[in-house]
Amino acid sequence: MRILLVNPNTTASMTEKAAVAARAVMASGTDIIAATSRMGPASIEGHYDGALAVPGLLNELKERNGAYDAAIIACFDDTGLDAARSLVDVPVVGLCESAVATAGFLAQRFTVVTTLERSRVLIDNLVRRYGMGGRVKVRASDIPVLELEDPASGAIGKLRAEIERALFEDGAEAIVLGCAGMTDLARELQDIYGVPVVDGVAAAVKQAEALVSLGLSTSKRGSYASPLAKPFTGAMSAFAPLRAAG
Amino acid sequence: MRILLVNPNTTASMTEKAAVAARAVMASGTDIIAATSRMGPASIEGHYDGALAVPGLLNELKERNGAYDAAIIACFDDTGLDAARSLVDVPVVGLCESAVATAGFLAQRFTVVTTLERSRVLIDNLVRRYGMGGRVKVRASDIPVLELEDPASGAIGKLRAEIERALFEDGAEAIVLGCAGMTDLARELQDIYGVPVVDGVAAAVKQAEALVSLGLSTSKRGSYASPLAKPFTGAMSAFAPLRAAG
Amino acid sequence: MRILLVNPNTTASMTEKAAVAARAVMASGTDIIAATSRMGPASIEGHYDGALAVPGLLNELKERNGAYDAAIIACFDDTGLDAARSLVDVPVVGLCESAVATAGFLAQRFTVVTTLERSRVLIDNLVRRYGMGGRVKVRASDIPVLELEDPASGAIGKLRAEIERALFEDGAEAIVLGCAGMTDLARELQDIYGVPVVDGVAAAVKQAEALVSLGLSTSKRGSYASPLAKPFTGAMSAFAPLRAAG
Amino acid sequence: MRILLVNPNTTASMTEKAAVAARAVMASGTDIIAATSRMGPASIEGHYDGALAVPGLLNELKERNGAYDAAIIACFDDTGLDAARSLVDVPVVGLCESAVATAGFLAQRFTVVTTLERSRVLIDNLVRRYGMGGRVKVRASDIPVLELEDPASGAIGKLRAEIERALFEDGAEAIVLGCAGMTDLARELQDIYGVPVVDGVAAAVKQAEALVSLGLSTSKRGSYASPLAKPFTGAMSAFAPLRAAG
Amino acid sequence: MRILLVNPNTTASMTEKAAVAARAVMASGTDIIAATSRMGPASIEGHYDGALAVPGLLNELKERNGAYDAAIIACFDDTGLDAARSLVDVPVVGLCESAVATAGFLAQRFTVVTTLERSRVLIDNLVRRYGMGGRVKVRASDIPVLELEDPASGAIGKLRAEIERALFEDGAEAIVLGCAGMTDLARELQDIYGVPVVDGVAAAVKQAEALVSLGLSTSKRGSYASPLAKPFTGAMSAFAPLRAAG
Amino acid sequence: MRILLVNPNTTASMTEKAAVAARAVMASGTDIIAATSRMGPASIEGHYDGALAVPGLLNELKERNGAYDAAIIACFDDTGLDAARSLVDVPVVGLCESAVATAGFLAQRFTVVTTLERSRVLIDNLVRRYGMGGRVKVRASDIPVLELEDPASGAIGKLRAEIERALFEDGAEAIVLGCAGMTDLARELQDIYGVPVVDGVAAAVKQAEALVSLGLSTSKRGSYASPLAKPFTGAMSAFAPLRAAG
Repeated sequence: MRILLVNPNTTASMTEKAAVAARAVMASGTDIIAATSRMGPASIEGHYDGALAVPGLLNELKERNGAYDAAIIACFDDTGLDAARSLVDVPVVGLCESAVATAGFLAQRFTVVTTLERSRVLIDNLVRRYGMGGRVKVRASDIPVLELEDPASGAIGKLRAEIERALFEDGAEAIVLGCAGMTDLARELQDIYGVPVVDGVAAAVKQAEALVSLGLSTSKRGSYASPLAKPFTGAMSAFAPLRAAG
Repeated sequence: MRILLVNPNTTASMTEKAAVAARAVMASGTDIIAATSRMGPASIEGHYDGALAVPGLLNELKERNGAYDAAIIACFDDTGLDAARSLVDVPVVGLCESAVATAGFLAQRFTVVTTLERSRVLIDNLVRRYGMGGRVKVRASDIPVLELEDPASGAIGKLRAEIERALFEDGAEAIVLGCAGMTDLARELQDIYGVPVVDGVAAAVKQAEALVSLGLSTSKRGSYASPLAKPFTGAMSAFAPLRAAG
Repeated sequence: MRILLVNPNTTASMTEKAAVAARAVMASGTDIIAATSRMGPASIEGHYDGALAVPGLLNELKERNGAYDAAIIACFDDTGLDAARSLVDVPVVGLCESAVATAGFLAQRFTVVTTLERSRVLIDNLVRRYGMGGRVKVRASDIPVLELEDPASGAIGKLRAEIERALFEDGAEAIVLGCAGMTDLARELQDIYGVPVVDGVAAAVKQAEALVSLGLSTSKRGSYASPLAKPFTGAMSAFAPLRAAG
Repeated sequence: MRILLVNPNTTASMTEKAAVAARAVMASGTDIIAATSRMGPASIEGHYDGALAVPGLLNELKERNGAYDAAIIACFDDTGLDAARSLVDVPVVGLCESAVATAGFLAQRFTVVTTLERSRVLIDNLVRRYGMGGRVKVRASDIPVLELEDPASGAIGKLRAEIERALFEDGAEAIVLGCAGMTDLARELQDIYGVPVVDGVAAAVKQAEALVSLGLSTSKRGSYASPLAKPFTGAMSAFAPLRAAG
Repeated sequence: MRILLVNPNTTASMTEKAAVAARAVMASGTDIIAATSRMGPASIEGHYDGALAVPGLLNELKERNGAYDAAIIACFDDTGLDAARSLVDVPVVGLCESAVATAGFLAQRFTVVTTLERSRVLIDNLVRRYGMGGRVKVRASDIPVLELEDPASGAIGKLRAEIERALFEDGAEAIVLGCAGMTDLARELQDIYGVPVVDGVAAAVKQAEALVSLGLSTSKRGSYASPLAKPFTGAMSAFAPLRAAG
Repeated sequence: MRILLVNPNTTASMTEKAAVAARAVMASGTDIIAATSRMGPASIEGHYDGALAVPGLLNELKERNGAYDAAIIACFDDTGLDAARSLVDVPVVGLCESAVATAGFLAQRFTVVTTLERSRVLIDNLVRRYGMGGRVKVRASDIPVLELEDPASGAIGKLRAEIERALFEDGAEAIVLGCAGMTDLARELQDIYGVPVVDGVAAAVKQAEALVSLGLSTSKRGSYASPLAKPFTGAMSAFAPLRAAG
């Protein structure tokens, strides 16, 4: 089984970190194909970055079409997830939806700890749309995404302080790490705090494997019907759908 | 007051229709600047088209920055609304949110009638996010967007049949037209059915005028904080933010 | 366009303050007709005062019928709004619904700061009914309404302290002032805190103007159907409807 | 135990019918004091009638203050309930809240069948506020309230047809009769349909008795704090509170 | 009227305490039959204890079938309530649902104070299912159930501290005691804090009496249809239904 | 990896069918241990059967403790799920929660088709608790569980008719089969209708595998804390917890 993991930002080191995390949990027989977007922002912090990361994401999905059995969008904002599902015929999963669905099997109430305040409500809106609004609180720990790469930044300390607030103020029964860049910290934090700590990259790998194993793919009836054939103009002309919807 | 009305699809005739509707309701002293996206799909039908319309939308907003006091995104899917709000400092409004907010002053329960089934849940999710989920039903009338331009298509008949189902099956107290391409039909349908019929373009003009008159603009605290300075790559490099967030 | 602004309490100085705020934002061509209720409580603090303010409100609407194109109920509790909409054929708007609808275009999450604890849940219930419950928190600042008229009362200090709690404890992205008596403070507070501060009186003026400009009025199908002809007795006999419902 | 049953409309025959129903279920030791409003509409159909019935209701409560241990507002719209709770120190219950709370012990999902379409959303909003929105559907059977008094009106046939739709289309497990004027039909309909049929008058009597027996009364902390002393003007001057809030 | 009060745990002293509380509020003519489960856990703290208390509860209901007119399940977790309602033909009420329904007549917003953290979310889920999620907060006071029997345990102090947090942090307008073992404390706490304090045992007695007086019982249409005849095996074989469902 | 699949009813042929379905999708390296409850009802139809199936379920989990890495409860009602999670230290998943979580990756709106009307609201309440209430409709097809084993029963025809109503009346984008006994029909129905058809048994296997692979297990903080040591009496005495909670 070939799973395409697309990092929708253009920072290859983050792709590599996510690929390592993905390969650490993949089943035997799974192959992780890691791709980095070749157009868009170096990191995704808020709505503007996110919207401009989508063409790069779709470009990777489109160019490699037929070469993968499922795809993962390696950003916790689930950037471009609905568009990706409309585009391709294989299953596509996001980190946020995979992580909260997974944590839902482990705990009644839990907290997502993300990076910047500007991502907090964005993720809260995702969580509500997925249906988990009544069970999940979202917290921001005031860490710029790229500081997660820098041990001297104090980012880990801020993250741990926020997890402790989640446990003692929210009564959280589990923690979800709300950024793809935190993927390497899950196991250690789980050991420290003694509650499940869910990482989105790992969760997404298992959900993608599950869907492929089960012979299930995105419904093409309704919301995710294939794009209708029509002209696309200018810098987006390469994205014009080649076929009519089914 | 200068209001930029951006059509996020690339069909100039739809821009023109929306501009006519906008100018028909604008206040004296308002100037409507109509712009058509120069990159992306010819119409927006579903998530894929919508996502690829956003760069073209943001491009119009960015290039004309400083030349308008508020902006309207002239698509009922509120395409790119969050990204647009993050980008610019003036108010930005969408058609769906303007129309449902407006209808909310007129009726306790109402129905949005849109075009294709693939847009139905997308709009329903928007309506829920805006908070109107408990008061609003969304219906699709099975009309491709561009057929609204063609009197011989039978589109009007389908639309009227769906409005009648809304009135008699949903108990709708008002109707919202769920596509920018229906903007010219509102007044006639209101006369026929004797209930308020709200058009998103007209509603958005008044909401944009209201915000500017009141000296209010998008909060830059939290969700819509200005984009952080960072590299943007490839076809998206022109979108790199020029300044740090405030 | 003639907009009737009715203060449903009997304190003329509060009417005057609201009228000044309304005239400060009205469009050219708008005429604000200010009316003070001639029966009922001197201020509206809680459910009892509110219920007994409604006949006075309806009396003003009824007596001036035909002399205005839209009406504003100048109390943040939206006192008598449903009854007023049933009575007259022109649009009627409340301060709370206007303010939260307006703030909804500016921020994802925001806080209403009102006066007394007894009004807090009342407004929270309104906000939920309008659909904004998931986006809005309501706070009381422990200020009797009439103290807002007295600079020596310390009311402003209490209000500012509560706004600061909203910003730092709730993560509010904008503030709504939850009392008609705070209408003169909005601009200054917006300058101090750097987030949108929405005043209900000003917001209501723009919503009323918008509805009239758009040729829209309250739906008479369902919830707001005109009162049926029937006898009214005693002190209420003057309120008997003169006509059958449409 | 003395329970004051106030009919907030001015039709004495409806008071009498409700009093009969109340006395049929009251405990030994309970005394039902029936009162008819002496000011306001002859029946309550929609928001306008309801708002103008409140002073008459409060007047009965006020004049008899000290002469009853609990009060029932004998209209399914729960007219003036919040104001009544603020005014008096003894428990006050409404028919809608009593009926839906009672039905909630008997069925997971049930339907309220009311009279006119104009009351349907009004009751639906009440039901939501009480928290039962997810369990209850509200239907209107197109019966003017006063036709319930007239055997030749065909009202019973319309009501039965609507109950049958509730059972077969909604999957209702129980029925709530959504008008005080239907109080005499509950037992017969229960026998016909073999599901619980809940009448609001009877339910309210038992809830009022329960609260008095338990030594419980309305909280005076927060929403229902006693009215603050202040001037009331004009036709409402008799309603000025005599005491400061506790 | 005979009301069977079943304590679903096996601790007879807790049954006795609940029976005393029940008899203190019962109507004249009511007879409380107290029964203690003869199989299962000594107290119910969390999901495991609760699930294993159900056969003992159903056993008491089944053996005494015909000897009571209504039943109360004397545990605040409403242990086995749905199964009990399916089994018997007379009304069955739980403490949590009775208490929150009762408190709903007294206050707009209130707080349940229970014992252990492990019961907090369990009760919160019950409260949501009953529809009160938007009005009620649940707090745990860190008291093992059996400590409530021991004056030297400090349990009362912990409980009072939690009630004070409810009043001052949640703005609670009333308090519900969230454990059958607290039933003797309600009156005293109500006197201390001056807000309604609702005990589940007492509330359940009045709701059971109400339903019987009204001639109402559990709907056998849908959710609570009588068990279908089928084999039961092993230790559960005595529970096989004797009759086909109606 | 050893996954214990417990059928909480006592019908071994249903266990066998579920085990076949489970083994058809298990990963290489997974071992499915199938167990049939040895006490309780022959099938689970409604709340009564469900409650009395729990001791048999827990008995299987307890006796085999240490011999499995995760457990599946093979009934769509998720019978005893919370108790099972409290009891054991390894992950436990239910069919309903697994199926709706899985379908949530494939479709925005979908329908669960179950057997009897008495299970419809029960499943609807589960779906709401898991957070999917706004995205999922539940339908009953009026099939007794054991008829699914009998080709001559007409059960398949009823099921297909209900699926067609889901597609054409609900706008369902995918179907979830709401009974463990339908597990062998999923693939064929998916081929017929061209939308994803999700079977709970298969979905649960993949979720259980995922959790074990990720090193995640049920949180023991809060809701699912291990049972506290205490006496259990009578037929339940074997269930007394052997250890104190962690």
